[in-house]
Order: sequence, then structure tokens, then C-alpha cells
Amino acid sequence: MRPLRICIIGSGNVAWALAPAFTSEPDIELTAICSPTPGHAAALADSLSPRPQAVTEIASLPRDADVYLIAVKDDRVASVALEATGLFPATALWLHTSGSVPASALAPAGGGYGVLYPLQTFSKGVQVNLRELPVFIEADSADGLATARRLALAISPIIHEADSDLRRRMHVAAVFACNFTNYFWTVADNILREHPGLDLSVLHPLLKETLRKAIEEGPEGNQTGPARRGDRGVIETHRKLLGDTPESKLYGEVSEAIINHYNKK
Amino acid sequence: MRPLRICIIGSGNVAWALAPAFTSEPDIELTAICSPTPGHAAALADSLSPRPQAVTEIASLPRDADVYLIAVKDDRVASVALEATGLFPATALWLHTSGSVPASALAPAGGGYGVLYPLQTFSKGVQVNLRELPVFIEADSADGLATARRLALAISPIIHEADSDLRRRMHVAAVFACNFTNYFWTVADNILREHPGLDLSVLHPLLKETLRKAIEEGPEGNQTGPARRGDRGVIETHRKLLGDTPESKLYGEVSEAIINHYNKK
Repeated sequence: MRPLRICIIGSGNVAWALAPAFTSEPDIELTAICSPTPGHAAALADSLSPRPQAVTEIASLPRDADVYLIAVKDDRVASVALEATGLFPATALWLHTSGSVPASALAPAGGGYGVLYPLQTFSKGVQVNLRELPVFIEADSADGLATARRLALAISPIIHEADSDLRRRMHVAAVFACNFTNYFWTVADNILREHPGLDLSVLHPLLKETLRKAIEEGPEGNQTGPARRGDRGVIETHRKLLGDTPESKLYGEVSEAIINHYNKK
Repeated sequence: MRPLRICIIGSGNVAWALAPAFTSEPDIELTAICSPTPGHAAALADSLSPRPQAVTEIASLPRDADVYLIAVKDDRVASVALEATGLFPATALWLHTSGSVPASALAPAGGGYGVLYPLQTFSKGVQVNLRELPVFIEADSADGLATARRLALAISPIIHEADSDLRRRMHVAAVFACNFTNYFWTVADNILREHPGLDLSVLHPLLKETLRKAIEEGPEGNQTGPARRGDRGVIETHRKLLGDTPESKLYGEVSEAIINHYNKK
């Protein structure tokens, strides 16, 4: 089997995280990286061995790659596909790495299309263990899916097929599990900072242990706190402490949701 | 300085977590453990070296301890203090380990009183690193506070003084940071389980990375997601996927709170 030749379009956190996984696979050849910002693609290319080509325009990418992987912000995916229209052979497979953009947004590029979505938040310079990430793949043909799987395997052995509907479901779950929880840590931080010298750091050990328990034992049986106990006295005391604020309203609403959740069981 | 003689009342998760910290300090002497459930105090005592006495009634505790540490459920603290009324010398210091019970609930015991509150969720059999826990102390006298500090130092070097008001503030913050977040992980788990073969485990790497970022960089600047971007299109799509459910309502309310939080800045 000749190596799979791929180009990456984008040089942000996702591209930085995935590119080394591709160059370290003998059956994958990362041939080029494209970013419109001068120097960005080159910086990523310089960090890799073997070093791929670095270009600033999609029109400058090699035409003979098997896969063009678009790793740009969600709202830029469709415009990259448009920019590629008519330039590349119809035998190419176009993939994007987004959780919320439909695969069909890539149709204008003129090849096969699909998604390779690694479910993680990447930060430049932070090494995450790719081998434990789930990767969700989708394609408009069986061949495309097989190719997406070959690439996904370079990242992680945990591969799920996911159509746009399933990716949407995961995105909703991730919003609750990560975006909303992160916001509640901000709320807690602000509540603590009203006392001089305190901030969220006093809760760090508790946060770590709460997550460890949720991961090892599942969150549902580990729920604690006044709402779980149905202790409306404490709930009222807490709401009073928060005063007439959006946080107090939110405290009441989430508490009611917890009370309802555990009472309907 | 002669060793500080203490008795622990309670043999639950908190007692199991703290007792070994006391027996390993040369200037603290854990003399007895009391639990009404036959065998419970003995099981904890058997795990310790030197082995303290195990009793099933408060009346059977030695009278000459310097500190009586009440580590029982919040709603039992006051009744333990009542049960001790008139039995012990007024020179004793009574402490409880609860975040939400006022120190004065211990006044009926007839000695000095205060709080020694380790901010953590303890599970029997799970070794947490006590040395990174914050411990909050309070007492009704300077001597009592000094004694509480001596005990707290056996647990962790991170000691804060906290009156009932500050403990209440921390409790509210902990509810947002831990109880509410744990509930949202349950919500995410249930959303994922509607798809056969999926559950919260696909989000575990993302959860760990989200917490790592929040701890190392603070949560406020790391907020992502549709609400942070003010993307009402995605928010509506997600609410439709959730249908006419309490989760959909909650999704909308937390999203609005995030939009407001980041727009008022």
C-alpha cells in the first residue's frame, strides 16, 4: 500500500496537535500545510520531521494529495471548500475536523467529503495524550470512510462512526459537560473573590476529586449537596447570600432541576 | 509541650480520612473513637497505630481529652453536643468538621467550641493527598483557635480562619463548582446514552483537559462554546434536539447567563 498523501489546511491548535501524529506514521505522508497567515504554516512545518511544504494559498497546495484535511475555525470551513472549487481532482477526499459543521459543507471542493473529528480541546504547546481521545469519522462513500479511518488510526485507536446528527448530540453533551461546568467554576471563583485572599484555588482539590469520582464511578450516584438532599432551607440561605443577582436565579433553577431529577426516579 | 489528647466522635469518611493524620503526629494523641454503630469505631481503631480506644457511647469517652472532634453528618452535630451536656469538663474544646453548621451548635456540650473544616469530599478507602487540602478553622477563644490550628497542621499546611459567614460563602461556591457540575455530567451522560454504545466516557479526555485548563489558567478566559460566542443559531439547534424537556430549559438559561456574563464585561 503506498503511503496516504495528505495536506493540512490550517495551522491552529488542532493542526499542531494532529500533524505530528501523521508524520510519525510510515504509511502516511504529510506533504503540505497551508495557512494564509505568513509564517504560520512554516512554523508548524519546521517542527515536523520529515518537514512538509508550507504554503500560504490553497491554490499553491499540491494537486495530487489523497486527502485535504481542513482544520480551521468552524465558520471558516465552508469558505475554504469554496476557495478550492475547480482546483483539485475529483478523486481527492476532503475532510474537516469540526464537531458542528455538516460534512456536506465540503461538497463545493469537488471531491469526496467527510469528517475526522477528534473530541478534545487543544492548546498549542500542551501535549495531550492523543491515544485516549475518541475520534469520530464520517464520509460520503465507503472508500472515503476507509481512508478517514486510516487517518484516524494514526491519532487514536478509539474510533466511532458519527453522522451529523450524532456529532450534534455529542456537541450538546459536551456543552453541558464542559462549557457549562467551566462557567460554573467562573461563578464560584467570583463568589470566593468577594472575600479578600480567597479564590477558586481553595476548591482545586475538591474539583479534582469530584471529577475523579465522576469518571471512575459515574456522576449520577455521586451527586451530593443541598439540592440532592432536597434541603430547601440551605438552598434559600444560599440564594439570600447571592442577593438579587443572575447567579442567585441560576442557583435556584439548577437546584430545582436536581431536585426534580432525583425525585422522578 | 505535652501531646494534645483528642477523641473523635464519628467513624464515617471524614473520621477515616483524618484519624491517620492525627496518629502519625508525635504531639497529638488520639485516645478514643466513638460511634453508636457496633463495630464501626473498632474497625477504624484497628486500622490505626497506636490503636485508640473504641466506644459506642459518648458517655463512655474519656473525660480528660483536650479536644472532642465531632465528624458526623451535618444534621447530627447539634444532637451530639446535646448528648454531651454536663458530662465533660468546661476546659475541653469541642470542634466539628462541617461546612454548614455554625460553631455555636456545639455550645450545649459545655466547653469551648469551634470548627475544623477540611474542604474535601472523602470516600472510604480512597487516599486523598491531605497535604494539599485547605482546612478552615474557627473557635470561640484565642486558645481554642490555637488548639484548632495545631490539629489542622496535622492535616495540611493550608489553613484559613473562617467564620460561619465565610464557610457559607465557600459552601455556595462549592455547590456551583462541584454539585452543579457533577449534575451536568449526569445530564451529558444521559444525552449520550440515547445513542446506543455511547456514554460519558467519550467525554472523559475532554473533561480532564477542561479541568486542567481551568486550574492552570483560570476558567474565565478559557470559556468556549456557542454561548461564549453568542451563537444563538447553534443554541436553538441544541435546544430543539433536547425537545420539550427540563434539560432544554436549563440549556437556555445557562446559555443566557453566559451570554450576559461575557457581554456585560
